[in-house]
Amino acid sequence: MGCELCERDGGSILWRDEFCRIVRVPSDDYPGYCRVILNRHAREMTDLSTGERERLMRAVFACEAALRELFHPDKVNLASLGNQVPHLHWHVIARHADDRNFPDPVWGAPQREGRTHGGRRAAVPDGQLGAALGTLLARSPG
Amino acid sequence: MGCELCERDGGSILWRDEFCRIVRVPSDDYPGYCRVILNRHAREMTDLSTGERERLMRAVFACEAALRELFHPDKVNLASLGNQVPHLHWHVIARHADDRNFPDPVWGAPQREGRTHGGRRAAVPDGQLGAALGTLLARSPG
Repeated sequence: MGCELCERDGGSILWRDEFCRIVRVPSDDYPGYCRVILNRHAREMTDLSTGERERLMRAVFACEAALRELFHPDKVNLASLGNQVPHLHWHVIARHADDRNFPDPVWGAPQREGRTHGGRRAAVPDGQLGAALGTLLARSPG
Repeated sequence: MGCELCERDGGSILWRDEFCRIVRVPSDDYPGYCRVILNRHAREMTDLSTGERERLMRAVFACEAALRELFHPDKVNLASLGNQVPHLHWHVIARHADDRNFPDPVWGAPQREGRTHGGRRAAVPDGQLGAALGTLLARSPG
């Protein structure tokens, strides 16, 4: 009903529970790019209770930890924007100094062309990333 | 020593405690734009303890609540990027459908020119925004 994130996922599901799901964004430019999506519909973090905010952020921080462990990024970017799709979701992106847009955000004009990280993506298959998330989130119950 | 956010603030300080500070980013395009800056030096959220992460996010969510109350935005954007200045800081930005970049992130190429929200900025002086934050954060102790 008008919200694409209520209805479908734009990537492989790495982990999910009844509250939220974590998908891997298909991108050769950004092999370590996850999206944490609230299952129910809400627009803003302050539409959630304090406990729900903390629960969603625990999933975001588990993504950050898994991406740091597996991709050794120069920086991690976290963002909840939703201007185009106003359904709560967080972008969690491993950034490298030689990636397409560094040091700009990933959404801007490319800083350099023709450089992909497809090799890094292949080196960390979805199953490995999902297993790392599962371990981290089991330690940090919702 | 090399980190500008360890040494100075790029805006008016609206609120601070011993853990973090909240500044208003000077921008006519984005009158409701705050930055939440960790006082000590750390690069990533997962460099903080769980309690510290929750404390920093409480300040971020207080900004979101204050901006919603005072600017009635179409969407709030939250982001911790730090590619250029790798010292933990959060952007909290009230977005309006007629702002310079909507629906893109604020860091991209402008969608439209010559439209500023200087009037909205003047209508909500720093003192009012700071008072709203003080009230919200007093309800939500660190």
